[in-house]
Amino acid sequence: MLVPGKEKLERMRDGRVVYIGSERVDDVTRHPAFRHGAQTIAALFDFKAEAAHRDLLSFEENGERYGLYWLRCRTREDLTRRMRALKALADSTYGLMGRSPDHVAGTVTGLAMNPAVLESLHPGFGENLTRYYDYARREDLYLSYAVTPPSGIRSRELFPGQQRDEPSLQVTAEDDTGVTLSGMKMLATGAVFADEIWVGNLTAIDANRLKESITCAVPVNAPGVSLWAREPYERHVRHEADYPLSYRYDETDSVFVCNNVKVPWERVFLHNNGTMSRQIYIDTPANCYANHQSNVRFWAKMGLIVGLASRMVEANGLDRIPAVRDTLGRLAALEATIGGLVNGQIEAYEEWPRGFACPNRRIMYATLNWCQEHHTEIIDVLRTLAGGLPLQMPASIDVLTEPTLADQFGRWWSTPSIEATRRLKLYKLVWDLIGSEFAGRHMLYEKFYAGHSVIVRNQSDREAPWGRFHAIVDDLIARIETPAVG
Amino acid sequence: MLVPGKEKLERMRDGRVVYIGSERVDDVTRHPAFRHGAQTIAALFDFKAEAAHRDLLSFEENGERYGLYWLRCRTREDLTRRMRALKALADSTYGLMGRSPDHVAGTVTGLAMNPAVLESLHPGFGENLTRYYDYARREDLYLSYAVTPPSGIRSRELFPGQQRDEPSLQVTAEDDTGVTLSGMKMLATGAVFADEIWVGNLTAIDANRLKESITCAVPVNAPGVSLWAREPYERHVRHEADYPLSYRYDETDSVFVCNNVKVPWERVFLHNNGTMSRQIYIDTPANCYANHQSNVRFWAKMGLIVGLASRMVEANGLDRIPAVRDTLGRLAALEATIGGLVNGQIEAYEEWPRGFACPNRRIMYATLNWCQEHHTEIIDVLRTLAGGLPLQMPASIDVLTEPTLADQFGRWWSTPSIEATRRLKLYKLVWDLIGSEFAGRHMLYEKFYAGHSVIVRNQSDREAPWGRFHAIVDDLIARIETPAVG
Amino acid sequence: MLVPGKEKLERMRDGRVVYIGSERVDDVTRHPAFRHGAQTIAALFDFKAEAAHRDLLSFEENGERYGLYWLRCRTREDLTRRMRALKALADSTYGLMGRSPDHVAGTVTGLAMNPAVLESLHPGFGENLTRYYDYARREDLYLSYAVTPPSGIRSRELFPGQQRDEPSLQVTAEDDTGVTLSGMKMLATGAVFADEIWVGNLTAIDANRLKESITCAVPVNAPGVSLWAREPYERHVRHEADYPLSYRYDETDSVFVCNNVKVPWERVFLHNNGTMSRQIYIDTPANCYANHQSNVRFWAKMGLIVGLASRMVEANGLDRIPAVRDTLGRLAALEATIGGLVNGQIEAYEEWPRGFACPNRRIMYATLNWCQEHHTEIIDVLRTLAGGLPLQMPASIDVLTEPTLADQFGRWWSTPSIEATRRLKLYKLVWDLIGSEFAGRHMLYEKFYAGHSVIVRNQSDREAPWGRFHAIVDDLIARIETPAVG
Amino acid sequence: MLVPGKEKLERMRDGRVVYIGSERVDDVTRHPAFRHGAQTIAALFDFKAEAAHRDLLSFEENGERYGLYWLRCRTREDLTRRMRALKALADSTYGLMGRSPDHVAGTVTGLAMNPAVLESLHPGFGENLTRYYDYARREDLYLSYAVTPPSGIRSRELFPGQQRDEPSLQVTAEDDTGVTLSGMKMLATGAVFADEIWVGNLTAIDANRLKESITCAVPVNAPGVSLWAREPYERHVRHEADYPLSYRYDETDSVFVCNNVKVPWERVFLHNNGTMSRQIYIDTPANCYANHQSNVRFWAKMGLIVGLASRMVEANGLDRIPAVRDTLGRLAALEATIGGLVNGQIEAYEEWPRGFACPNRRIMYATLNWCQEHHTEIIDVLRTLAGGLPLQMPASIDVLTEPTLADQFGRWWSTPSIEATRRLKLYKLVWDLIGSEFAGRHMLYEKFYAGHSVIVRNQSDREAPWGRFHAIVDDLIARIETPAVG
Repeated sequence: MLVPGKEKLERMRDGRVVYIGSERVDDVTRHPAFRHGAQTIAALFDFKAEAAHRDLLSFEENGERYGLYWLRCRTREDLTRRMRALKALADSTYGLMGRSPDHVAGTVTGLAMNPAVLESLHPGFGENLTRYYDYARREDLYLSYAVTPPSGIRSRELFPGQQRDEPSLQVTAEDDTGVTLSGMKMLATGAVFADEIWVGNLTAIDANRLKESITCAVPVNAPGVSLWAREPYERHVRHEADYPLSYRYDETDSVFVCNNVKVPWERVFLHNNGTMSRQIYIDTPANCYANHQSNVRFWAKMGLIVGLASRMVEANGLDRIPAVRDTLGRLAALEATIGGLVNGQIEAYEEWPRGFACPNRRIMYATLNWCQEHHTEIIDVLRTLAGGLPLQMPASIDVLTEPTLADQFGRWWSTPSIEATRRLKLYKLVWDLIGSEFAGRHMLYEKFYAGHSVIVRNQSDREAPWGRFHAIVDDLIARIETPAVG
Repeated sequence: MLVPGKEKLERMRDGRVVYIGSERVDDVTRHPAFRHGAQTIAALFDFKAEAAHRDLLSFEENGERYGLYWLRCRTREDLTRRMRALKALADSTYGLMGRSPDHVAGTVTGLAMNPAVLESLHPGFGENLTRYYDYARREDLYLSYAVTPPSGIRSRELFPGQQRDEPSLQVTAEDDTGVTLSGMKMLATGAVFADEIWVGNLTAIDANRLKESITCAVPVNAPGVSLWAREPYERHVRHEADYPLSYRYDETDSVFVCNNVKVPWERVFLHNNGTMSRQIYIDTPANCYANHQSNVRFWAKMGLIVGLASRMVEANGLDRIPAVRDTLGRLAALEATIGGLVNGQIEAYEEWPRGFACPNRRIMYATLNWCQEHHTEIIDVLRTLAGGLPLQMPASIDVLTEPTLADQFGRWWSTPSIEATRRLKLYKLVWDLIGSEFAGRHMLYEKFYAGHSVIVRNQSDREAPWGRFHAIVDDLIARIETPAVG
Repeated sequence: MLVPGKEKLERMRDGRVVYIGSERVDDVTRHPAFRHGAQTIAALFDFKAEAAHRDLLSFEENGERYGLYWLRCRTREDLTRRMRALKALADSTYGLMGRSPDHVAGTVTGLAMNPAVLESLHPGFGENLTRYYDYARREDLYLSYAVTPPSGIRSRELFPGQQRDEPSLQVTAEDDTGVTLSGMKMLATGAVFADEIWVGNLTAIDANRLKESITCAVPVNAPGVSLWAREPYERHVRHEADYPLSYRYDETDSVFVCNNVKVPWERVFLHNNGTMSRQIYIDTPANCYANHQSNVRFWAKMGLIVGLASRMVEANGLDRIPAVRDTLGRLAALEATIGGLVNGQIEAYEEWPRGFACPNRRIMYATLNWCQEHHTEIIDVLRTLAGGLPLQMPASIDVLTEPTLADQFGRWWSTPSIEATRRLKLYKLVWDLIGSEFAGRHMLYEKFYAGHSVIVRNQSDREAPWGRFHAIVDDLIARIETPAVG
Repeated sequence: MLVPGKEKLERMRDGRVVYIGSERVDDVTRHPAFRHGAQTIAALFDFKAEAAHRDLLSFEENGERYGLYWLRCRTREDLTRRMRALKALADSTYGLMGRSPDHVAGTVTGLAMNPAVLESLHPGFGENLTRYYDYARREDLYLSYAVTPPSGIRSRELFPGQQRDEPSLQVTAEDDTGVTLSGMKMLATGAVFADEIWVGNLTAIDANRLKESITCAVPVNAPGVSLWAREPYERHVRHEADYPLSYRYDETDSVFVCNNVKVPWERVFLHNNGTMSRQIYIDTPANCYANHQSNVRFWAKMGLIVGLASRMVEANGLDRIPAVRDTLGRLAALEATIGGLVNGQIEAYEEWPRGFACPNRRIMYATLNWCQEHHTEIIDVLRTLAGGLPLQMPASIDVLTEPTLADQFGRWWSTPSIEATRRLKLYKLVWDLIGSEFAGRHMLYEKFYAGHSVIVRNQSDREAPWGRFHAIVDDLIARIETPAVG
């Protein structure tokens, strides 16, 4: 089923509990803090459901049509096709929505390529997963996830013996019907717009933290669930032109809070196994499928960045200065770098698990590392190209509504290269990528969405063929002659 | 005269014309976009006027007491004393106010150490300057400046022959009483709170742009003057705790717009000389005194940054991890680096112009370069230490106003190291330095307040003793033996 | 024909004129400055000629067998196959030979995929190229090139009117039989071991420098040709273990000097056309095929670097320290990055020119840029991991030849992780990659082999789809609503 | 006493045991691997002894004249004077000699400012130190030091239980006359030219490694001492012009090996105290005085680097290109940065210990950090400016000895800006700073002479006024209002 945007918006009006500070949000589709974000999500569903995009964005299996990001790839061609769908979706939101519906779908699809991993831990749980995968893609669900314990918890180990209420989400009771959850998980991006939340652990937890290993799916409006949103950036924008990205592309982040939330067994996929609660994403293509989407999304964002850099220096009449062209050439090279890395994952794809195709894992992790290492600097290049100009624009496009100001603005803010209103829109757009709070959140997000750099590099360490690398050195050394004693 | 803060606030209520987009601001001291900023400026005046700070922050000359930043230093001790005053003022605003009253005062004081430079260009103008210096320090004026032409103008040369209304501020008429100005100058930081605006050119303009060379002082409320502010960051903050820095330390930036503004001759310091309109700051200690203040201010900001980094990792229980301590050690080293550079300017001070003392210019420019090269990275270190935590706090401290939410917040957002409310304040504070729009503006400001890096490095190139550097190489080469032919 | 190494060595004994300073080298295969380098080249030919490597390293066309780097690819599979051959060759020399026989072969092969480009400039020259391509691959020639004018020449334009002997290689005479060349070209890497030198211009020259545009092939032993070598690093190595890389992998660089060298017309491919003398490599796959080899070679080098880093920290017992593992993980990620970029060029290959397949040009240039941007830093990581250890080894492995020293060395230089002699070899190997003169030359080579970064980025600028990037921004801006005046 | 160079050379001919691999060096002043280095040291003594440099380089105390680096400063003026002496000495060797006689002299002088630290650990040892200080300065000794245990030793803790011969230098016996030492210490820089070796621990060792804590002074020619040199870079240089820096400025590094070396008690300064064996340098100005010299030396080196950069681009006719000038401006700024940091240490000097003056420790450690963070990049800037030119010079200046080659070289290697021979010398000089093995050793040395960056930053962490930094944050937070519940 390919759900149209209108229906997706309906689904968001399901009584979900969302707080902005102390304010309870009634309806995210109408609230000034969320409504345009909701529409952006809805637009993604419309985009996918459109007949013209049928081949690009969906596939058929057993007579049913599904979003292409649910495809369990079996060939290189499948991977190429899936990647193109991810790219088209990311392009449509300029790579600004990190946890768009194709992200967690990748996680679940990856698990569904090898449900035996779950089944072997607990009979029935693998089947639960397969059923959930079928259900989610059939219903065209938008899944978000909450997969990190609250920070500061590790200090418990450092300062043992202190009693305190335990905020980590965990199973507090279980019975024949299912488990009961209480506690919180960090930063369910997109959750206020999603249908369900995937709960689990993407980072390693202590093997003995059994109760916290729970891995399951929870509808956003489940009784006891509340979402504590960080400041929504859309909220104070009065004119789209003033903050064009904040206005539409704030995917939102929320702390996922559970107070005695009941989850039936059929939605439980792992229980009482701290180590495996993270390992399942590594032992299946789950982690790779999800982060491959992140790679593709970053690529889409680079398109916007490179385009903006060029349009901006044109607007300023600086685009023929050699040092500026050098910078533009470099940015274009970086766009091709991330594109090359995405393509390289497909060329060097792995036949894994048996019968399936997975983007090359080492290259995928290397791409994560590349993105993480370069985002701050790339945005800083944009900042340097922008100069003080974003701050030289009037505070709001509403200057146009006052004839005297509008006249003066039109005459004095125009340049030989660009007319004042377009110039304002251009620099406000740039500002929303380099200076606004929306931009500030992206600076943090790109640094941490896949975990701290230590985690990202650890993935590359883990997957590295050290034996092969060592053999290079050992063979070289073995050939070196040793002079005889005496 | 040392004006108390209350009187400073009064001075701001002088009918000045300020726009936020299309909104005309009536009274900056009461408007929600500016009032706390205004109070911060007032507090600086109170701080200076306080009897306890008499020796620290002011000096006496001919029986009159002046703010210490008006001191024309004659000895190393004077420089040390002046630097300590600048540091105390910057510390009191955490180095977040770039154009506090001590900045442009440095420019004018520097000119007043060698008014002959102006006098030689046009008899009487040097005297104008000396009188203005006396007046400004006696009245304890807060001067801001507008010293950059609007961007995009240079494209006029690239695309010649196009007709358009000329937005660069220039003299459009002159008569016996003075000159008439129209056009705009970029980015009068702090202007909405200032008493007067220094108009001139800190960057080179074409020698033949005579009318734009005008250098003069204009009261902020002069008829025909308007300030077009960029978005004020204080405006949407409902609770200080949510954005503690935006709330108080937005010094504001405005485009300075003149429509037939009359300036009497006694306030004109240079006219009809494109080249010298910038050179006067180089040929006198003006540029050095002003930017020495920037160096000292950055030093103060580093104190906040280093303290925050440490408190933040303590809050998270990470402060004993070796890699984290390494980062803290490095940040402490960077704080000592900027401190060392400020001190080095004094140890290696120049007796220039004759009879006066000036911070070492090469070291001062090197310090500007150091700040410009490192700010982005330093903030990024803070970002990396922060992790996702700032986004995991509730949107607002107003959660405390709802008992149920307050209870849950208090229990679950506390950690063994830190209680929830203090933790929220701490991370909101961090966010205001790394992620908010206030932070975003600082990222740009620190990159450009002293001009693009090309300009900053050009100053170092200009002041470098190339002859001495070349001699090192030449002497070395001269000593190398050349084998004989054949 | 696949020439065995022994025959390749014979070919080097052809009377070629090579100078090391004032010393005339008689026979590069026997001279202590070149003999092991010569054997390394010979080993590459043996490797290719070996029956076991038939499929890996060669292909058949019209019943003749050729080195695979001469393959004009028509499909993705061809590109994959060719890439694997390049990788195997580069692996066998640890990526340390930049201009191994597969590099310039790529240039000529690229030209041979579209000889019409040359033919259209001058009838017959395209045919010359095709014939030369057939000849070179049939004879299994090792081609080097000399394609950069001597530095400092551009100053002629800056200081016009000065008379001096013109060192730029150019045509000084021409007649029915061919052209006469005099002057020098820069830095024919590998030339002392090669069979022929490709002469031309890889960087842009003035359109009006007609005589310098000459593009032709010259046998290394042609009368009038001499090679002025830079210091050969192999020369002072007494024991392989002391400088294991200098000993075998110094590919050498020489200034290519011509004194009235005659070149027959059939070896001339372009004449009297400054602009096109560079453009031909861009208008055909020549530049891409050659630099694709450079990308692959860098990938091979990364294997050695990553392996060394790991073995080195194991030897020092530091391999379990988290910060060290983080560095190793990062290095492994970088190895996968370059691997991903090479693979990405194939996945996104271009059908260009019609009927042929070319690695994706934008990704190839992006890869060049990546290598250039990262090499210094990668080696510096290795340096940091090495610490002072390379300098703590005895000056030479010959300590083993003195029983007393050997005994003490064996006891005191061993560690619990590694025995003294192996340790010495390991750290001498590391030193040869980070500290020896061989290493120093690599630091420069990796920065400049594809031209200054300005050139490399200009290639990315030139190939960038600016229209597509602009459309992203324009579409976004076009959608932003403008409020009405009044 | 100020010893002239000739006598210094005599002192080196004292039967000291030096090995280059298996080769026993008879006389370092005559051996081709060391003779010019020895002369460079001798020249430093001559420079100091010269009457004209009396005030600059020496001071008088109780009627005796001493090298100025032995001065225990009591005032800011003393510090300024001492710094100028260090600068003059460093300038005379272009900052290339890290452990020139003024380095370890700083350590001993620092200890002599507070001998009570030693005396309190063991009565008599403080007096030993004072006597040794008097002796060393009176005899104008050149002290080197060996203060790091051999690497790989820490792995003993990681792999406990393995038996092996213990290479760490330690006390193996003691009696009434003194202690007996066996084992090795790392990297006695300059030792082959020095008079005595200071043995101790500059890095922390385990508190329970009592025997290794021994801190004492050993004459280089003491029976049982041998120096195992790393490859000497001077050895293969046939013409000064080919490697102008290797030729004269290789200060050499050696492993310091003891086989039953007897040290009398009066030369012992600490014994049986692992923790304090490092702490004594921190609890006295020893570490600061020694590393202040390192800061000053780096400053001198920057002078050479900046001069070379400028001369090099002039030679190539590139010095008027804006991007190149930007780089030169930046290099000049960096030179002023290190100069500013050195001066800042004096302006902010500490009165410590009571009655004495010490350069500001935090700034001194920050300067170490600055040097360590920037050296690699600075040299890489030089490399980028150099381009391929150093490799385009003939292998040796001996081309001048062959008339035909000399003629061609003179004509073709000259440019309008610079004549061929001078050009060769210039680029060989550059190469010796960026590419030769001498350069490679400097790349490592500047990274590690003060310890791994972890150690350098730890010093800054240790000295940081965390209380003051925390107070900044705490005060700010304390002021933030908290809204009331309900």
